[in-house]
Order: sequence, then C-alpha cells, then structure tokens
Amino acid sequence: MSQYTKINLVARPKPGPITPNLFDVVTENVPVAGQGEVLVKQTHMSLDPAMIGWMSPDEESYVPPVGLGEVMRSSGIGLVVESRHPDFAVGDRVRGMMGWTEFYLSDGTGLSGVPDGVDEETVLSIFALPGITAMKGLYGFGDPKAGETLVVSGAAGSVGSLVGQLAKADGLHVIGVAGDDEKCRWLVDDLGFDGAVNYKTEDVAAKLAELTPKGVDIYFENTGGAIQHAVFDRMNAHGRIVVCGMISDYIASEPSAGPNWIPMVKKRLTIRGFTVPDHYDEIPSLLEQLAPYVMSGKVKYRSHVLDGLESAIDGLNLFFTGGNRGKLIVKL
Amino acid sequence: MSQYTKINLVARPKPGPITPNLFDVVTENVPVAGQGEVLVKQTHMSLDPAMIGWMSPDEESYVPPVGLGEVMRSSGIGLVVESRHPDFAVGDRVRGMMGWTEFYLSDGTGLSGVPDGVDEETVLSIFALPGITAMKGLYGFGDPKAGETLVVSGAAGSVGSLVGQLAKADGLHVIGVAGDDEKCRWLVDDLGFDGAVNYKTEDVAAKLAELTPKGVDIYFENTGGAIQHAVFDRMNAHGRIVVCGMISDYIASEPSAGPNWIPMVKKRLTIRGFTVPDHYDEIPSLLEQLAPYVMSGKVKYRSHVLDGLESAIDGLNLFFTGGNRGKLIVKL
Repeated sequence: MSQYTKINLVARPKPGPITPNLFDVVTENVPVAGQGEVLVKQTHMSLDPAMIGWMSPDEESYVPPVGLGEVMRSSGIGLVVESRHPDFAVGDRVRGMMGWTEFYLSDGTGLSGVPDGVDEETVLSIFALPGITAMKGLYGFGDPKAGETLVVSGAAGSVGSLVGQLAKADGLHVIGVAGDDEKCRWLVDDLGFDGAVNYKTEDVAAKLAELTPKGVDIYFENTGGAIQHAVFDRMNAHGRIVVCGMISDYIASEPSAGPNWIPMVKKRLTIRGFTVPDHYDEIPSLLEQLAPYVMSGKVKYRSHVLDGLESAIDGLNLFFTGGNRGKLIVKL
Repeated sequence: MSQYTKINLVARPKPGPITPNLFDVVTENVPVAGQGEVLVKQTHMSLDPAMIGWMSPDEESYVPPVGLGEVMRSSGIGLVVESRHPDFAVGDRVRGMMGWTEFYLSDGTGLSGVPDGVDEETVLSIFALPGITAMKGLYGFGDPKAGETLVVSGAAGSVGSLVGQLAKADGLHVIGVAGDDEKCRWLVDDLGFDGAVNYKTEDVAAKLAELTPKGVDIYFENTGGAIQHAVFDRMNAHGRIVVCGMISDYIASEPSAGPNWIPMVKKRLTIRGFTVPDHYDEIPSLLEQLAPYVMSGKVKYRSHVLDGLESAIDGLNLFFTGGNRGKLIVKL
C-alpha cells in the first residue's frame, strides 16, 4: 500500500517568521475512494497571504482558523485518480480547498472542474483568490475613474499586480510600491505601470510626490506600515482607500500606528476593509468580468513555483520578506 | 449716525486655545440699505466647531478659509430693519451666513425666512448645521438598524446629542461619551441614552465594555483622541465609523496617532469622513426628514447662550474645554 504526505498545523504562530515547529509532517497510507467519493492527487497548491490569518485564532476574523491537528488549509488543483462519484471521472482536473496534502479524499463538496486550455498556474494566479480579490476590491470599493491616480502597495504581489494592470487598462495613472528594483522594473517595463517606488531604498514620500503630481484618488492597501502614511498624506478630496491586507503588520510584535483622522473629515475620505468570503456569491460574476482583461492580454502575471509539499512551510515567509517573484505556487 | 460692532479675523490660530489677538473688534457706522438691499439687525449668532477649520487656511479643506481682515464667518438669525428689496419687509425674521456682526447689509443672496412658531434657539440648535450634520452623518453614512449599538463621542454637543436621540428613536442601543458627570446624566436621564461614559474620570475601555456587551456597530466620531481607540477596539464585523469631527485634535500641536488598520480587514470596517458643504442640495430633504422627530418630541436640545458679540471670541474655546452646556449661541 503506497503512502503520501500531508502537513498538519499543530501550533499557533507568534510574531516573527513562520517556523517548522508550527507544523507536523505526517505520512499516511493513501486512502481508497468509497461509494460516492473521489480521490484527488494534488498537483499545484496555492500559497496566499490570507493563510497567515487562517493559522491564528481570532474570534473576530472572517473565517474560522485552522484547528490544531488539522491539515493546513489551502486551495489547489489536482487530478482525479479514483472515482466512485457520478460527477467526476479518472483524469479530470479539479480544484478545491484541498489543503497541504498530496492526496485528497472528497465526497465532491467544494470540488469543481478546471476548464480545458487554461493551465494550472494561470488558474491559481489569476482565476482564483488573486483575481477575485483584485476585482472586488478595485471595482466593488475603489470606484476607479479614467484619469484618476491609483497607488497600490504590495504592487508586485499577485493581487497588487492585477489591481494595477486593471486600473491601467481602465485609463488610470497607476503607481506601484514594491520592495526591490527588479520588481519595480517589472511593474513599469512589463506590466505598464506609470511608475514604481522601491520602499526599501527610496524616500517614499518624495518619490510619491514626484510620481503623483495630481495627488492620489485611490489607495489599494496591501501592506500597512510606513508606506501607508506616505500615501495617506497624498490623498485627494473624496479619495477612496481599499484595505485588502496589512502584511507588514501581521507578524509585527507591535502593529504600527495608523494615520490621524483629521484628513478623513477635511478630505472626506473613505477607508474600506474587505475580505472575499463576504462576497462568495459574487465570485462567478467577478471572474466573468475579469476574463476579457486576461483574454485581451491586458493582464499578465508571473508565478514563483516552489517544489514539493514541505517547501510550503518556509514559503510562507516569502510574504514577509518579499522574496517571491510573483504568485507563490507549490508544485507537488 | 448710530454705530455698530463687527469682528474681523486678522491672524491664523496656532495650536492651543483661541486668543483675542486673532481678532479685531471694529466699530463702524450702521450702513443704509440701497436699492435692492436689505439691512438686518442680527439677534442670534451660532457658534459651531466647524469655525475652527474656517479660520485656518488649508488648501485641501472643504470650504475656503475666512480671509484675513474679513468679518469672521458664522450663521445667524436677525430682524430686517430696512428693506429696499422686494422679497423682504421690515420686521421679517431672516437667517443666513451673516458673520460676527451686529448689522448685516445684503442684496438678499443667501438670506432666507424663518418660519413662524419656531424660536431662534430651536432654529440654530436643530434646524441648522447641527440637524443637517446629524441627519446626513447618521442616515447617509451610518446605515443604522434597529437592535444595533451606536456609540457617539462629543455626545452632549449639538450634533452628538441629536445623533444619539435619532438612533434611540430608531431602536438602537445608544451610548454617549462626554466630558463630565452632569452631561452624562443629561444624556441618560433627559435624552434617554442607554448609557454614558465620562472620558475624563472613567476607564473608557472598561466602561464601554460594560455598556456595549454586544460590541459596537456604528461609531459616530466627533472628538478623536483616546476615545477613538477605545471604541475602535470594540467595533463589530461590518461596523461603520462616521467621522464628523476631531475636536480634540484640532488644537493639538501633535495630532494623535490613529488605530492600526489590521481590524479594518479582519472586521471589514468602513470609515467615512464627511462634511455638509458636499451635500448642500440635500439640505431641504434632510430637514424635512428631521422635522417629524422634533415635532413628536423625540429630539430635545439645550442651548448655552452667551451674551454680546465679543463673547464669541472666548466662546470658541468652550469647544475645546467642553465647558458648554448645549448648543452655543451668542445673543446680540
């Protein structure tokens, strides 16, 4: 009987990097599909910043945390290798929240097919959490209008790079904030951003002033920290701030202070936080609206592929260091 | 020829209290109404927190500042004492942005009548900036629903006390934050608030926890400062924060830090700043919606009347000290 590996969460993260002792790497016998069940061999697993939240119990969070001793949560794509379920056949490509595991046994709930002609990396990089998040945040709350200026932090990340490209396709002036020169060049040279700021080496306030001569109408916030203050100071009257993530603060022992609210009144700003699980019913229409941007080549992506299940553990730290080059995917 | 007094703004305020040297008290001859003009003897002048902003130049603010050497801006009510204007007759009661002056000469622009049967204090305390601000902020941005919990800071102020009473009339659980025990008793005993916190003598976080057992759905922000952080920490998922004013920070030399934004995402909060000038066209309908609350006795007010034009100068400091008891009005 052959065996497979899965990774359970066994401790809660503390401020600082993710460490291997939070997880237990388990080897088990590959299960057999019973009546009404389907067995999937996962081939591609998505790593997303939201996972940091899923690992931490917080009664006010938007989804329940992963239970201790349970397999770590993630979405992925795999091949059906056994099926006693009428909707799935051996060889089908399927996607779902399979978790950190090489094999996934399911009664079919939450599993869906992957359309032919779209490869796994494109699905996980665009037609999944990144695309849904970018579409909902930008169009649901950002209210972009041609000629306006948008700044996005975490701009080289999977969500940030989509937000900037969508806004650019819609005629906005788009500036990205990222953490190294190579990312900044990618944003401007390959994705068509109007400018980029390397927050680690440049004076963010001065560079932003230069790149956003008409101020900032929309700030798409993925990071928090010092970048937030620099952009906040440049917001125009009636500006919109969409808070999608705060990655720089998630592992800080002391979350950084936010800006004072006097400009909220003077400039009549709106700050709106959101998460995708509140909008599950909108996912089909959001993906439908996204598709033409992708098909017409207005939206590109790059993926950063890690090799093997256990690479996921240290892979999470790339969100904090910014060491990834594009959408993080673990290939199994 | 008789004389009258007016007060011009001659310097910009610095952090700290308002001082007399910012103003020039001027005596002039009472003007004569020319063809098409109307002369008003002002009887009641409104003092509002927004005046602090009007005194300070800030290119990003929502209304132009009062020019140096110009009469200080304010709204008021007066009696027509001379008229060569077809729309106004001697003895008419009129309201308008007359400024800090005993007499006001006008071509009629911006002057409107005051309905019979409503006294001047009621007009300035309810059917003016306070009522418009409370209505727009609460219903335009707060989205109140029966059974929810609302916290309002500056609760004994003219806007705060209206917001709390309106929410209470709509079936919300309403808690006010104010600066002394007398105000807190007034909120609970006279206005029907469900509870009140004296932020100067009580542990705001602990008292709020006790008074808002189901958390806070709407925070109506008039003050900023430490109260803001205590309420922010108790916001429920999908909570709305309406930022109307930041009086505690307006004269601070160093505005206080705002809360970190991680809860914006986790709780999907919305923070919305607003000012009335963006919504001038809605004023008639806002006042129309407010009237039934007043007529049915669900909304009460109290006014704090100062005597004589020059009392306005030091009167502004009552907004910072919280020394006023109700809507500040200067009787001329």
